[in-house]
Amino acid sequence: MDERIRRHAKILVDHCTDVQEGDMVVVSASVESRDLVTAVYEELAKIGAHPITKFRNSEASRVFYDNLDEEHVTEVTHSKAMWEETDVAISIRGSSNTKTMNSVDPEIRNKHSKANEETRELRLDCRWVLTQHPTSGQAQQAEMSEMEYEDFVYDAILEDWEDRKEYQSQMVDILEDGTEVQIESGDDTDLRMSIDGMNPENDYGENNMPGGEVFTAPVKDSVNGTVLFDKPLLAHGREVNDVYLEFEDGEVVDYSASQNEEVIKSVLETDDGASYLGELGIGMNRNINRFTYNMLFDEKMGDTVHLALGRAYDRNVGEDREQNQSAIHMDMIIDMSEDSRILVDDELVQEDGEFVFE
Amino acid sequence: MDERIRRHAKILVDHCTDVQEGDMVVVSASVESRDLVTAVYEELAKIGAHPITKFRNSEASRVFYDNLDEEHVTEVTHSKAMWEETDVAISIRGSSNTKTMNSVDPEIRNKHSKANEETRELRLDCRWVLTQHPTSGQAQQAEMSEMEYEDFVYDAILEDWEDRKEYQSQMVDILEDGTEVQIESGDDTDLRMSIDGMNPENDYGENNMPGGEVFTAPVKDSVNGTVLFDKPLLAHGREVNDVYLEFEDGEVVDYSASQNEEVIKSVLETDDGASYLGELGIGMNRNINRFTYNMLFDEKMGDTVHLALGRAYDRNVGEDREQNQSAIHMDMIIDMSEDSRILVDDELVQEDGEFVFE
Repeated sequence: MDERIRRHAKILVDHCTDVQEGDMVVVSASVESRDLVTAVYEELAKIGAHPITKFRNSEASRVFYDNLDEEHVTEVTHSKAMWEETDVAISIRGSSNTKTMNSVDPEIRNKHSKANEETRELRLDCRWVLTQHPTSGQAQQAEMSEMEYEDFVYDAILEDWEDRKEYQSQMVDILEDGTEVQIESGDDTDLRMSIDGMNPENDYGENNMPGGEVFTAPVKDSVNGTVLFDKPLLAHGREVNDVYLEFEDGEVVDYSASQNEEVIKSVLETDDGASYLGELGIGMNRNINRFTYNMLFDEKMGDTVHLALGRAYDRNVGEDREQNQSAIHMDMIIDMSEDSRILVDDELVQEDGEFVFE
Repeated sequence: MDERIRRHAKILVDHCTDVQEGDMVVVSASVESRDLVTAVYEELAKIGAHPITKFRNSEASRVFYDNLDEEHVTEVTHSKAMWEETDVAISIRGSSNTKTMNSVDPEIRNKHSKANEETRELRLDCRWVLTQHPTSGQAQQAEMSEMEYEDFVYDAILEDWEDRKEYQSQMVDILEDGTEVQIESGDDTDLRMSIDGMNPENDYGENNMPGGEVFTAPVKDSVNGTVLFDKPLLAHGREVNDVYLEFEDGEVVDYSASQNEEVIKSVLETDDGASYLGELGIGMNRNINRFTYNMLFDEKMGDTVHLALGRAYDRNVGEDREQNQSAIHMDMIIDMSEDSRILVDDELVQEDGEFVFE
């Protein structure tokens, strides 16, 4: 076994989820991630925690949804009972084909999700982490060989997360003290928003491994200006390029894309909150140095900013602030490495990817 | 996907476990059995039953037991909670290496089993089935190629189980009416036992798929004579050949083996009940036409008889009869195809593999 798999497992169990003696742990993983599961079991045994593994099998999920009658959708009570007694959730992505579920009717999935919302809440009440095992499917999606992709993944994951926490806290401090953020990039992006009263969060690899961003929520009706997302977006299994949005008082009033524009249309029409921003995130992890069509990595990439249409995270929203509500949370990325600036209260924070505190 | 996998899945869901709309189902399966899991999900979805899959990963189990301190062994409460809400259990064997767990200390496994006995009972209270997916590990153990092994497995599984039920019921009737059974084979096997007041069972593929035996329990102190098991036995990961036992009033009073005799010694020393028989089984499935070092198949093989040292099954033991109790249940097989006879109350039932009712 690649020694890096063991180091990854140790980070998941120690740093991310702080597993304790006697903890009941659910590992969710696919066939292709079995080696990481094995390494996680080794760490859990040493601590005296007790795992079971929920098998993620996307082909099985696909045929299940394809053959399930809507009227049979219900709460899955044995799964819920398990989560009620669970302390820690370790979810591992990694498959040989990232497109297996593409054909599934989103409606039946949504209905199933809705029927099992309480189970989802139980899972989020655990100490939890979502991570990636390097597999052929994600390597192909990233347009890399498997060995190259392994190096990419472990470069992002095997780092000193306490150092990162400290480094990123400089950006947290700026957002905590600031009220207005301006994002400028090239000719098409000039966006202003208030973050007044919102709570910026430091993501140093707790719920997401790798971590590497600082994120907050915009004040809902404060967003004005235009933005061009120059990194591709994967939505509904399709690639959307050059998404361009125009905001007025928080709401998207115009949009375009160079490809699959209708996907953006359907996203915006999901519900009322889908036309408002729920997140402003600043990617600060330079160990993630390329785009891989995998949001778990892409949104943390160094020299990027991402904005999400839809739901704002509870933790970001100040007590007296409105939380944008939506069924969606769609992240989109702006490359900030050239001809770009982040300003907070009109003071330069980052120029062409370089922070003022560097 | 091999169409036989789908037919196997349908038998598991319909014939073996009679899955109903709304049932909560736990599938236990290894990586290598993923195709059968997928086919099972298809059948479950059509019925409107709800599965989760427990991932069997023997390498992970091995490292877990190897690193678990005895004092950390406990009841796995989230697993138990899941089983409390489960209606149907479909357990699928199939791995790329049948020897992965060989090195694990049996004591820690036994301690873990004991701590989770209530969970085991919950599982047995479900409608349950144990089956085999044809994989490289079991093919290698059977000394066959993978394609040959696939044919072997599906020849045994894809049959008309109602026909088999009827065919085997002739043997059940004989044992229900009879009181004394005599097994004779070659020069070394001549064994008599009473089955008076015991309940013979017809295994036509409910809890085991494939099924194909009729079995009962001997009256505990009634077994007398000698027996040579001429099919190899796999115990504690080792092959034991030519096990020979001598019984007096139910108890083993002498034993030998041509290889690994010490394994038999340790089996007999497990507890008091380990020196007594718990089962007499008559293999009647001629679709299983060769020995494959896999008891799920071997004990149902046509023209064989098997006896088990140790625990008798609840269902076989008559109300006023003593149930042999033991931590073990060790099946051993006699080839009855040549120079062999089964007699019940001194009447011939089978000679050289041929039943009188054929």
